[in-house]
Parts: sequence; structure tokens; C-alpha cells
Amino acid sequence: MSHVRSRFDKPADELVIKYTSSLPFDWRLYREDIRGSVAHARMLAKQAIIPASDAETIVKGLSEIGQEIEAGGFTFKPEMEDIHMAIEARLKEKIGEAAGRLHTARSRNDQVATDLRLYMKDTLTATIAAVYELQTALLTVSEKNPDVILPGYTHLQPAQPLLLAHHYLAYFEMLERDKARFTDCAERTDVLPLGSGALAGTPYNTDREFVARELGFKSVSRNSLDAVSDRDFVVEYLSAAAIAMMHLSRLAEELILWSSAEFGFIEIDDAYATGSSIMPQKKNPDVAELGRGKTGRVYGHLTAMLTTLKGLPLAYNRDLQEDKEGLFDAVDTLLLSLKVFAGMISSLKIKSDKMLGSVDKSYLLATDLADYLVKKGETFRNAHGVVGRLVSHCLKTRKTFPELSLSEYREFSPLFNDDVFQITVMSSVDSRDNPGGTARQRVSRALSEAKKILSDE
Amino acid sequence: MSHVRSRFDKPADELVIKYTSSLPFDWRLYREDIRGSVAHARMLAKQAIIPASDAETIVKGLSEIGQEIEAGGFTFKPEMEDIHMAIEARLKEKIGEAAGRLHTARSRNDQVATDLRLYMKDTLTATIAAVYELQTALLTVSEKNPDVILPGYTHLQPAQPLLLAHHYLAYFEMLERDKARFTDCAERTDVLPLGSGALAGTPYNTDREFVARELGFKSVSRNSLDAVSDRDFVVEYLSAAAIAMMHLSRLAEELILWSSAEFGFIEIDDAYATGSSIMPQKKNPDVAELGRGKTGRVYGHLTAMLTTLKGLPLAYNRDLQEDKEGLFDAVDTLLLSLKVFAGMISSLKIKSDKMLGSVDKSYLLATDLADYLVKKGETFRNAHGVVGRLVSHCLKTRKTFPELSLSEYREFSPLFNDDVFQITVMSSVDSRDNPGGTARQRVSRALSEAKKILSDE
Amino acid sequence: MSHVRSRFDKPADELVIKYTSSLPFDWRLYREDIRGSVAHARMLAKQAIIPASDAETIVKGLSEIGQEIEAGGFTFKPEMEDIHMAIEARLKEKIGEAAGRLHTARSRNDQVATDLRLYMKDTLTATIAAVYELQTALLTVSEKNPDVILPGYTHLQPAQPLLLAHHYLAYFEMLERDKARFTDCAERTDVLPLGSGALAGTPYNTDREFVARELGFKSVSRNSLDAVSDRDFVVEYLSAAAIAMMHLSRLAEELILWSSAEFGFIEIDDAYATGSSIMPQKKNPDVAELGRGKTGRVYGHLTAMLTTLKGLPLAYNRDLQEDKEGLFDAVDTLLLSLKVFAGMISSLKIKSDKMLGSVDKSYLLATDLADYLVKKGETFRNAHGVVGRLVSHCLKTRKTFPELSLSEYREFSPLFNDDVFQITVMSSVDSRDNPGGTARQRVSRALSEAKKILSDE
Amino acid sequence: MSHVRSRFDKPADELVIKYTSSLPFDWRLYREDIRGSVAHARMLAKQAIIPASDAETIVKGLSEIGQEIEAGGFTFKPEMEDIHMAIEARLKEKIGEAAGRLHTARSRNDQVATDLRLYMKDTLTATIAAVYELQTALLTVSEKNPDVILPGYTHLQPAQPLLLAHHYLAYFEMLERDKARFTDCAERTDVLPLGSGALAGTPYNTDREFVARELGFKSVSRNSLDAVSDRDFVVEYLSAAAIAMMHLSRLAEELILWSSAEFGFIEIDDAYATGSSIMPQKKNPDVAELGRGKTGRVYGHLTAMLTTLKGLPLAYNRDLQEDKEGLFDAVDTLLLSLKVFAGMISSLKIKSDKMLGSVDKSYLLATDLADYLVKKGETFRNAHGVVGRLVSHCLKTRKTFPELSLSEYREFSPLFNDDVFQITVMSSVDSRDNPGGTARQRVSRALSEAKKILSDE
Repeated sequence: MSHVRSRFDKPADELVIKYTSSLPFDWRLYREDIRGSVAHARMLAKQAIIPASDAETIVKGLSEIGQEIEAGGFTFKPEMEDIHMAIEARLKEKIGEAAGRLHTARSRNDQVATDLRLYMKDTLTATIAAVYELQTALLTVSEKNPDVILPGYTHLQPAQPLLLAHHYLAYFEMLERDKARFTDCAERTDVLPLGSGALAGTPYNTDREFVARELGFKSVSRNSLDAVSDRDFVVEYLSAAAIAMMHLSRLAEELILWSSAEFGFIEIDDAYATGSSIMPQKKNPDVAELGRGKTGRVYGHLTAMLTTLKGLPLAYNRDLQEDKEGLFDAVDTLLLSLKVFAGMISSLKIKSDKMLGSVDKSYLLATDLADYLVKKGETFRNAHGVVGRLVSHCLKTRKTFPELSLSEYREFSPLFNDDVFQITVMSSVDSRDNPGGTARQRVSRALSEAKKILSDE
Repeated sequence: MSHVRSRFDKPADELVIKYTSSLPFDWRLYREDIRGSVAHARMLAKQAIIPASDAETIVKGLSEIGQEIEAGGFTFKPEMEDIHMAIEARLKEKIGEAAGRLHTARSRNDQVATDLRLYMKDTLTATIAAVYELQTALLTVSEKNPDVILPGYTHLQPAQPLLLAHHYLAYFEMLERDKARFTDCAERTDVLPLGSGALAGTPYNTDREFVARELGFKSVSRNSLDAVSDRDFVVEYLSAAAIAMMHLSRLAEELILWSSAEFGFIEIDDAYATGSSIMPQKKNPDVAELGRGKTGRVYGHLTAMLTTLKGLPLAYNRDLQEDKEGLFDAVDTLLLSLKVFAGMISSLKIKSDKMLGSVDKSYLLATDLADYLVKKGETFRNAHGVVGRLVSHCLKTRKTFPELSLSEYREFSPLFNDDVFQITVMSSVDSRDNPGGTARQRVSRALSEAKKILSDE
Repeated sequence: MSHVRSRFDKPADELVIKYTSSLPFDWRLYREDIRGSVAHARMLAKQAIIPASDAETIVKGLSEIGQEIEAGGFTFKPEMEDIHMAIEARLKEKIGEAAGRLHTARSRNDQVATDLRLYMKDTLTATIAAVYELQTALLTVSEKNPDVILPGYTHLQPAQPLLLAHHYLAYFEMLERDKARFTDCAERTDVLPLGSGALAGTPYNTDREFVARELGFKSVSRNSLDAVSDRDFVVEYLSAAAIAMMHLSRLAEELILWSSAEFGFIEIDDAYATGSSIMPQKKNPDVAELGRGKTGRVYGHLTAMLTTLKGLPLAYNRDLQEDKEGLFDAVDTLLLSLKVFAGMISSLKIKSDKMLGSVDKSYLLATDLADYLVKKGETFRNAHGVVGRLVSHCLKTRKTFPELSLSEYREFSPLFNDDVFQITVMSSVDSRDNPGGTARQRVSRALSEAKKILSDE
Repeated sequence: MSHVRSRFDKPADELVIKYTSSLPFDWRLYREDIRGSVAHARMLAKQAIIPASDAETIVKGLSEIGQEIEAGGFTFKPEMEDIHMAIEARLKEKIGEAAGRLHTARSRNDQVATDLRLYMKDTLTATIAAVYELQTALLTVSEKNPDVILPGYTHLQPAQPLLLAHHYLAYFEMLERDKARFTDCAERTDVLPLGSGALAGTPYNTDREFVARELGFKSVSRNSLDAVSDRDFVVEYLSAAAIAMMHLSRLAEELILWSSAEFGFIEIDDAYATGSSIMPQKKNPDVAELGRGKTGRVYGHLTAMLTTLKGLPLAYNRDLQEDKEGLFDAVDTLLLSLKVFAGMISSLKIKSDKMLGSVDKSYLLATDLADYLVKKGETFRNAHGVVGRLVSHCLKTRKTFPELSLSEYREFSPLFNDDVFQITVMSSVDSRDNPGGTARQRVSRALSEAKKILSDE
């Protein structure tokens, strides 16, 4: 019977052990658990709460257990409720009674909160690095294709011509905000709960600041009750991850669209595509589809965690054990998605002819024509009306703008003149020369700034 | 390189294999995959689409592979995208070229849809059985405690006295609806997609009805495009499971409340309780807490699946691969939750004295007093006002109803008479003698009907 | 001060009235509230619980109030917590003291549950009718275009040729399941809670079956506690609505894709399209986009309701008041979406040339070539490999299948023969002649069956 | 026909107008729309893009329209798609053709994004102020009750004695994090999108920095595509709001529990409580229940927005119109919840006797006994075991710790001595004298720090 059941007459039911054990997933925290215990033991010795020799034995024992786990020589027994108990039990096997001193002045409640925050600190660093990797890939493809023009879409209808680099820099911006959110989350995660005991603090002369320094935490928690029951940092990570996945889902949607036969703007590299078990001709953008599909999974974990926390009275409740599996899966999903997307974007084959061809086929310069009339003195609303009727005329006569004669133009407005033929796709692009616009010189500068942002980090 | 990549020049990227492989979770469908393939092979032979001898070799090979997996002697290689490919590759190792005929007249799209429906059919049966088990436990505790009275609550404030059996029969009703929902879902799941090919049907002279009979499906799908892209049955299971978990979360909340020191209505059996690593006196209702907490997890999987399906064009898209992990976890969670709750409820220690004590301390008979006045001719609204003022008087003078004298009563209404003292907790309970009411004779009949419902199934 | 506050010393805080009042949304239930009260009053009189003359006055008064509300002459005062109190207060103004007898033998808890179920019964009928309307539109467009062929997609890559009618019949099937789910939900909604009182039943000699008959309910609830706290029928509607919106979102996605310049398969009728404030050439598929976007809204309401119900102890808790706004919005959204989609689909302009053109440009007959080889004796896996290499060859030499000579074919397999040139788009379509396949004769029969299903309802 | 439909042959369908119109909810942005247009007009004049006199007329006209709306004299016509069109149409009525110049160098896409960000900037300020208000209420109740002790709970089982002030300071910390999240969100919201045009920038010589200064934005957006399609700030607000509501739901749960008859720790002020329509004795914590219940609503809006954004290709899509209703409702819900909770907490009646009584009845000092033994040299694990058996003994003999004799203590460990009787509830509380602990001196200092935090803001 587990040593925390000393007041009980009966062991736990078999199914209950299965139901309550977190070891099948929290073994992932073994490194953090050992790091936390080592710092705790050192503090206990420093403060003379336990004998220094015991602390040394404990630290040595823990370090060996870490090696055993790394080497795969550690048996995780299901009846050991969780990773904390599994490690402590092993410690007792190795060093005997002294192991019983490790849990002085702490509780599983502050211990698990500490482990999870340690894990999150590393995870946040890794997440930011993975976002950075995808940003780099976006800059690379943008730099390699400085003059490529594609139709910009709204409502998936051709709207105005755009630089491809400008398009991908939009994703750079989204990811830049993602990093900012993860950075803010890291700030709020960087608080040590250890020393909060079960819920009320501990009656020992501990040195929490020492432990914080040992473990690299910026500060110690200010309220013990809050410290053991707070999982905001998990929810905050999950919501930042949900937004990041949403960004990837938009990018994914475009990769799927653009590699369709009808668009044909890009070709996904063979290394990022998949075949069909039945249709030999197929080359499928499965990676993009999975990225889009896995968005649901991360949204789901966010919903799950928020639901679990709803209406829980203070302080620790066992419901909180549900904080890990969804989180781990969200972290794995986001990190892997960012990495495979970085590879997929870097290796993308851009079919610039198809892009430009699509620009030419649509009435993408209609806004430019309206702006032309405005510059000649028309109000924008009237100019919009004139060009609307002009488009209607073109559709009925199956003509494109370049196929119109000046006299045809002038049937719609006397303001049209010879210079209307100077409006080209490239002049349209370059005319949008304000901060944030798609003009080549603007985009080139934006690219440089983006590279500077990355190199400054 | 996988044999579905014959038109490709490059193998898939390492991370991509990890990202796209479903084998780490869809191995769970090996039984269904083999059953489906066996039926398919038999049909192909019966229809002379493949030689009968090849079909025999295939069936024998598949059956041996099933045994290898059961015996743990099967290596699931990650580069084998999924369970279907893993089994087919092994089949080829075992029986050679003939294995290549198995995939005639089918695609992975209809194959995986068939596997998943086979899995769901069994899962739905198991789910209904697990709900039944918990219903049985509720009836048992109700039958063992036929006269136990507790305060009924609204807004968690004492409202009117109730039979404990009546209280638990409310959960019986919820679970009865859960079973009905799972039964309806089973009806819609019981449709064979195999034979739909990749999306358009197949050009072979297949016999879909034969396969349906072999696999125990009630009907065959009516539209091939729908058949390969439909995951309604997954979402429908998840939403029925979410509602069932919601019911458990309500039961769990009460178990936690009732086993608190302040309520003290029940004691959870040691086998379903847990201790504390730091506080030796603790006996915690962890199973109930986890049941409540895991509600979030199932809600999350529902959100995930709905999100994944949103906006997908027809027919199959790789996003659909996300249909399994959340589903499997939801199934495991619900089944185990139902089972441990059944055990916990069955072994519950009812502290009827504490329940009755709580009834006596509150003004639970106030509605009965109002109804008393109504029966003497007062309108209900006036009677409600009279008793409201009476309660206010009691609170100020710190008296309970039984401590009031008749003259005190009559200060509030002249309709009060000696027979007001005949209103007791038990008379209150027994007076609610309409269909659905808490009167002992009603509840006893309701219990019999509930038992009949279960035994009829 | 509200008449339910007779034991209180203070009125409610101003903000609290705003916070707790449900009148701003539950006024929508006025018809149901009046219907329920009329039936209740009649039963009270029939059972001699209140004088028959009072019941008559009450019924007359309620009927007049209904007319006042319909005529817009009713003032909903915010301090009247809810529609029930608003109507009862008005009744008292109109008929005096007798109004106070209406609330005999009922509580707001069973009253509101009854109102909501009455509302849902009508709503479910309306929902099924709206689904029917969209199904009819799908059949119409299918019938009008019996021979139109388009590329079937998987992974948004051209896969195999399909009949457009077959494609739209897939949506018919989805909607058929939606109707089945709403029908099942209606079954479980069709239970009368009135007579359950606050939570325990009532001490009057009521006739619940009479009320059920008056209001058109199939049965009366079996447990009073469950009856007042059950909102399963709301969650069940929301989850069926979420699935239905998911179906619409898939249809919407395709409408958007297909009306893009690159696909160009359809043109949405002007009445269902929108322009741009700045780009005069734009014709945007806003209705489809909003349908896709509003999917989120309905998912959100489902999440909301499930969250609200999580962990609530029995019986009624005020949290349950949150059951209405999200539901009403989901109902409005779904009904309007179904209707505008029906109109949009009916008026769709099909550009069959563009569809067929897209079929010709891709290697859609690759599976047919593989199946050709299988019929000549090759295993499917080998045939798949052969055609894969053939496609690879075509891509490199920029040829389509019809442009290959027989000798080129035979370089890849000696089984190819003259009859390979008989494989055409239409032969491919017609070869898929199994139940659920896209062959013309199959689809024609499926259409007839679909029409029969609708006309049988 | 709307003036953006100049290329169309038909008006929009009636239901379509209803389906697509955002005026029923986006009228709330009229102030922001007018502010944005005024700044835009001034910039156009300053840059000589439109005549200065036209700009003056426009600004004057807009200002009058603002007054008309404030005064309630403005008719919002449903056929005016949205607030932007409604205001521009009115402007045209008032000032004629010059109105047509206002839309020069902008699009509805950047206009609506600007309006929404202006709204969010004010909303974020208001949200932070409302959080502050609730924090102040928590400090007030803490200061008024410096010595009140209650049982601290884990798993809703009595765990260790706590100061009430310590308990409420835990909520102060949660809210402090909420403010930090809203502050971070405000930072990312504070970016001007105007000047991005429809998606690509504008071809006019605009001065975006001038507009930013006029409207109080810190910076201008760096990428036009991103600027018009980014709704991260909405999702980020919703997720911060969801977390804040989760905190309120925990506080609400405790208010409900604590005001139950069984706990009886507090009494909610009459102004924040509600009665029953049927049970005259009831005083219900409806405000707390609604706060808990409305958590679902905010979670739902978060789910909705994330779902809507999933998989949208760049740039603007009409799906984005769904960004407002849920947001507005979430804002209203959160702000009102914070305010009514502040009032409810401030007016709470603390029943300190009941709290202390509950402390005395449980074995809350068990951890202190274990720590006592540790200080005498026992390992913590052994000490935990000793006290576990001691509790078991007490339960069997129905004794509390103070009722044990020294010799009884010593049966369990010889380390027990006379000084064991010095362990009291207050000594237990005061012994937890580390940062974050519940000792009176610590809590008093924490209170001062909390007040300083608030006054520094």
C-alpha cells in the first residue's frame, strides 16, 4: 500500500490505480523533478533543516536515478501514482531512510507546480526558437523571389496584384506576434512555487530565494494558495499555441489551394508530399493538410483545460492532474508543425509564370483605374461607379482592360486619357508605396527590417 | 520508399514521416483492419475478381498476422505510414505477390472508414454496457436505502426534503437518455463504406451486400463521396460522450460536496479514496475529482473534431486522419469513468443521520406551509408572502418551525390551525405523490420500473 | 420589491437586476409561457385545486396578454426578472387576486423547463423543414445537370471524374443524417416537466397527463429532480446544429473555391453575391463565407452550454438561465443559413465547360489505367506502380494520356493493348456502377430514391 | 441598390440582406467609425489628396452625425450593410458629393480593422479598471478581517488552517495576472491598420503616422495584408477574458459553497441574493451562480472566434465579420461580472465563528504534528506515517487531537513530549512564516504590498 495511505484500511481498487495514475504521462517531467528535488535538498541542508550528509546522499542518489532513466534502465511501475513517487521510491531503495527527509518542507502540490513551470520555461524557449525557424524560412523564400507577383485575394477573388514577398511577410508579422505572446507567457511562468507547501506555506526556516536562483526562476510566488492552484500559465500557453496553429492553418490552406491543379502557383517538394494507395497520379499536400487538421487538436486542448479549471474551489484539487496530457500533446504538435512547415516552405517550388498569368486574366487593375480618375478630380465613389460599369462592359464583351481602346474608355468617363495605358501590373504594385504597402522598395525595406528583428534576438 | 510513391523522385523527409504517420495510434484498429480485409478478399474471390486460391492465401496470411499481433510478435515500423500499410507489407513478406491483389477494388479511403465504423460498433456496445453498469449501481444504493431522507437543494440551498433513492433515480434517467443517444448513434454508424473506392466507386463487379453481411453491417452506404468523407458518427459519439461526462461531472461534484467535512452525508470507500503526501489526516475523493476534471478532456476532443472538419471540401482530405486519437482517448476516458463510478457508488457509505440532521436544521417545510394555506383557501402568491414573513421572523428569533406556537403562526395568518403541526418531514415527502414525485410509494414504483427497464435490455 | 423577496430586507442592487434579468431574451418564450399557463390553469380547475371561475378569468387574461404582446402594446419592464414574472404581474393588473392562484402546484423551475421544451418542439419541426428545403435545392440542381462531369478531388488534387449530381447527392446524404439527428432529439424533447414543482413534485392532486395532452407532449417526466435540471435536449440540439453547420461549411468552402477565378466552375447569382467598397471589379461570395464563418458561432454555443452544465449539483441552479441566448442564436443562425443556402444553390450558374476542361487537363484516368491492367491479370499493387511510372513519364515529357502512343504505353507494361484507348472520361464515370458509385444509371436511380425520401416525409 | 454593386445586374435577396448585414450589432462602433473618418479626412486634406474645404465639410458633417446618433435621432436602415455605409450614406444626404471623397485611399477592410482596434483600446482600459475594482474589494474584506481563520481546503477536504485574508489575496494574485494579460494585449492592439487599403496599401501620398497620432495609436502596421486580416487581438482579448472568467468561476463556486447551510461561512448581502417563486425560505446566491454559469458563454465566444479564423486564406474574407458579436458579448459579460462581484464581495457578511468552528472539528493540525516530529529528528516520511496512524486511532475512538493524553501520543512515537500541546490553530498559522505563507505578519505585509501595487497604477 502506498505510503501516503497510512490512515487507510484498504488498498486502492485496481481500476482506480489505473484511473488516477499520472505516471504514464508525467514521467516526461523526470528531469524537472530531479532538478527541483536537488535544489530543494541543497536548500534544506544550507538551512540546516536536514543534515548536510543526508542532502549529499540525496543529491547523489537523484543524479544516479536521472542517469538510470536516460539510459532506459528505470522501470516505471504503474502503482507508483506519479513520477514524484516513482523517483522517491527508487531513492529509498538506493539510499535508505535518508530519502524520507527529502519531502521535508514541501508537498506534492508545490512540487508538481514547480516541475511543470520548469518544463514550461524550456518549452517556451523551444517554441520561440521553432517560430524563429519558420520565420527564417519565410524570409528565405521571399528573398529568393523578390519580383514575383501574384494576385492578392479578398474573398478568394482576385483583388489587386501583390509581391509574393509581401504576402509571406504578412505571415512573418503573425509569427512575430506569436513570439511576443510566448515571451509574455514566459514572463508569467517564471515564478517559483516551491516552498508553498500543500497550500499554506511551511513551518521551516526555508530559503525560497536560494531555490529560485538554483533553478533559474526570476521570482518566488507571493501567495501559497495561489501558487499551488494556479495553472494560468498552462492555459496561456495553450491559447498562444491555438493562435499560432490558427496562423499555420491559414498558411496551410493557401499551400493546399496554391498547389491545386487549378491554381498551380507552387509545387510542394516531394519530401513534403504523399502519394495515394489507389490513384497513381496523385501528389498530395498531406503535410499542409495535417497542419490544418491539427489546429483542431490544439483548440481542443485549450477548451479542455479551461473546462477543467472552471468552478474549482481553492486550493489544489485532483482535477488539476488533467493539466499535463493535453499540454504535452499541444507542445509536441506545435513544435513539430512549425518545423515541418519551415522545411516545406524552404523547399517550395514557386511557379511565377502561373502566378503572373492569373494576374493578367483578372481585372486586378480596376482599383488603379478608379484611383486614376480620382487623381483627375473625380470623387472616389463616382470613380468606383465608373469602373464598375466598365468591368460590366468588359465581361459582356469578353475583353480585358488592355484590349480596350481609349474611345471605349471615354464612353465611361471623359477623364480617361492616353496615360491610362501606362497603368500596368508593376506600376500598380509600385504605386502602393506607403508604410506597409506592396511597392518593391517598401517590401525590400520590410525584408531588411525583418531580418534585423531576427538577428537582434 | 513507400510503394504508393512510385511517381516521386524523393523519399519523404524524416520529420514528415513522424508528422504524418498514424501507426502510433491506429495500430489499435488491427483487428478491424484484418476483419475488413478478410471479408473483402472473400468477396473478390466470390465475384471472380481475384483467383480463389489467392484469396485463400490472403485470408490465411491475415489470420496469422492477427495472431502475431495478439502475441506481441509484430513489429510496427514507423515508416509504414499506417496500420493498413503495416499489415499489407507483412502480408507480402508472408505470401508474396498475391498480397498485391488484396487492394483491388478498394482504397485506403473506404478501408479506413470501414475499420473505424467496425471499431465504433463494438465501442458503442461497450459504452452502453458500461452505462448500464453504473445504472445498476445507482439502483443498488437506492434499494438499500429506501427511507433515507436528505435535503433537496436548489442553488445549493436547502429546498425541500427528498428521498435519497429519488435523488439517485434522477441520475438513472440521465443515463437512460445517454444510452438512447448511443443507440441512435449506433444506428447511423451501422453502414458499410467499403466499396466506395477512393471517392467515386469502383469499376469491378463487386458485391457490397455480401461484405456488409460478412461484417455485420445493416446496410451499405448510398453515396461513395459521402461514404469516404463522412465522420459524423465520430462527432456524434463525441457529443453523446460529452453529455454523459457532463452527467458524471454533476454526480462527481455531489460526491465531493457530500463527503466534505461540512456536509458529511457520505463516506467514500477507502478503495476509491486517496491520501496526501504531506497531510496525514487527509482522505480525498480523487476519483470523483478526476471524473469531474476529465469532463474537460472529452469536451476538448469534441471541439477538436468539429474544428478539424470545418470547411473541408469533398472528398477525403488528410485532415481526417485526426479523427482517431481524440476519439480513442474519449472512449477510454468514458468507459473507465463509468466503471470506476459504478464501483464507487456501489461501495458508498451513506450517513443517513447527517442527512436527516441537515433536513431538520433548515426551513425545508416552508413550501409545505404555503401549500397548507392554499388548501385553506389562500392564493399561492399570498401564501408565499405569509410564509416568507414567517421565515424572516424565525431567523430573527432564531427559531425553527416546530418551535413556533400556534399563536405565533396566527400572527401571520388566521388560517393556521392545530393541524399545522401535522406537517413533518415524512409527510412532506409522502405528499409529493404525483408521477415523478418523491413520495415513498412513487419512488418505490419508479425503482421497480427502472429495474424492469434494465432487465428488458 | 419583487414578490419573491418577502423574506428579504433589501431590494436587489441595480447592476444585479441587470445581471440577473433574463427578460431581454426570454421574452421570446411568451407564446410558450402563455400556452403552458393556460393548460396548467385548466388542469387546476378540472382537479378542483382552484375555482373554475378563477381559471376562466386567468385563461381569458392570459389570452389577452398574448394579444397585447403580439400587437406590440406590452411593456417589458427590466425589473420583472423574467418573462414568467412579467406575464404574471400583468395578469394581476388585469384580473386582480385570482392571478395569485395560477402559480399553485408549480414552480418557475418546472415552468421554464416546460416553456423551453415547447419552444424546442416547434424549433425542431422548423429545423427539419429548413433542412428539407436545402435538400430540395440540391436535388433540383442535380436534376437540371444530369450529365455534367467535374473532377472529383481528394486532398484538393484531381482524383477521378465524377457526375456533379453525384457530388451534390453527397450533401443530400449529410443533410438526411442531420434530419435524423433532429428527429431523435425531438423524441427526447417531447416530455412534459410541468408538475415537477421546484424539485420534488407537488402535494396537490394534479393531472399531469391532462396537461401533457393539452400541450401535445408524448409523455410526462419520470423524475422531478431530473425534470427541472435536465438541459440535455438543449445540448443535443446544439450538437446536431453544430454538425449541420459543419456540413454547410464544407459546402460553403466549395462554393467559394468553385467561384474563384482559378476554378471558375460556377457563378453565384448576383442576388447572393456582394461587391467591394474599393475594388469595382469584385463579385464576392459573401453568403458562402458567412455560412462558413458562422459555423464558429454555433460551435461556440455548444461549448458554452456544455461548460455551463459541467459540475452543477442537483437540482436547479441559476447557471441554467444561460441555456437560452446561445440556443436562440444557434437556432436563428442555422435556420437562416439553411434558407439562404437553399436559395443560393437553386440559383447557381453551372459552368460545365470549365468543369470538363479541368477534367481533361489532369491525369484523372490513372486509376482506370491501373484497373485496366488488373483486369488483364496484373496485381493491383504492380499495376499501381506501372501507372505511377507512366504518370512520371508524362509529366517529364509534358504529355497527357491521350497523347501517348501504344508503344509508349507498352514500354511500361506489355499488357497494354489497343483497347486502352477506349478508356474515356465518360467510360470511367459509367464504369463505377456499384451501389453508391458515380455511374450515370446509378446516380439517376439515387436521385429518384432521394426524391422519394423527401416526398415520403 | 447599394453603391458598391455597380457591376451587378440584380439587387441582393431579402434574406441575404438580413444574413449579411452587420448593422444590428456594429452600430456600437459608430463613435470609433466617426473618429477614424475624421482623422482620415484631415490627413487627406493635409496631404492635398482632397480639397481642404471638402475635408472641413466632411468633418463637420460627421460630427453632426455623431450628435444625431447620441441623441437617438438616427435611423439605422437594415439595407445599409454596416455602420460604415450607414454613416457615409447619411453624410452624402447632408453634404452631397463631397462625401464621396472620404473613401479615397481607404477600404472598408482597413476601416473596420481600425474601428475595432479603437474600440478595443478603450475596452481594455475599462477592463483593467474593472479588475482593479474587484481587487480593491478583495483587499477591503481582507483588511476588515485580519485575524479570521478558516479551514484551508485541498480536494474540498479540510487541510490546514488559513487566514481569510490570505485566501482572498490568492484571488488578488490571479486578478493581477489578468491585468498583466490585458495590458500585454493592449500593447499588441495599439497598432493602426488604416492606410492598408483593401489589402495592398494605397497609391496616394498618405501620412499614416499623422493618422496614428490623431487617433492615439503607438505605431502603424508594417504589412498591409496582415493589417486587414489580423484578428489576433480579438482572440487574445477573448482568451484573457476566458481566464478571468475562470477565476471568477472559482470565486463564485466558493461563495456558493460558503453560503450553503452546511458551510455557513458567509452570508451574501440581500442586495446580491434572490428569492424563490415557490419556496418562501430561500435566499439564493444567484449572482455567484450566474457568474459561474456565464464562464461558459465567454469560453464559447473564444471557441467561436478561433473556429472562424481557422483555415482562412489571406487577406480579408467575409467570415471576419463574425469577429464582433461574440466579442461585444464577452466584453459586456466580463465587465458586468467584475462589477457585481466587487459589490458582492464588499458587502459580504463574514461568519468567523462558523469558520473557526469548522477548523476545530477537523484534524487540521496533523501536518503540524508531523513537522513537530521532524524537528525532533524523525524523517518526514516516518513522521507522516506516525501521524497517519494517530489520526486513524482518533477516528476510531472519536477523539480530537486536544483530547489525547501525552501517553496516548507516545504510543505512536516516543518523540512526543509536553510541548506537543503548544500546537494550536494560531501557532500553526503563524508558523508558516515564509514568503507567500499564511502567518499573520506575512499576510499583513502582503496586504500592504497589494495596496501599493494598486496605488502605483
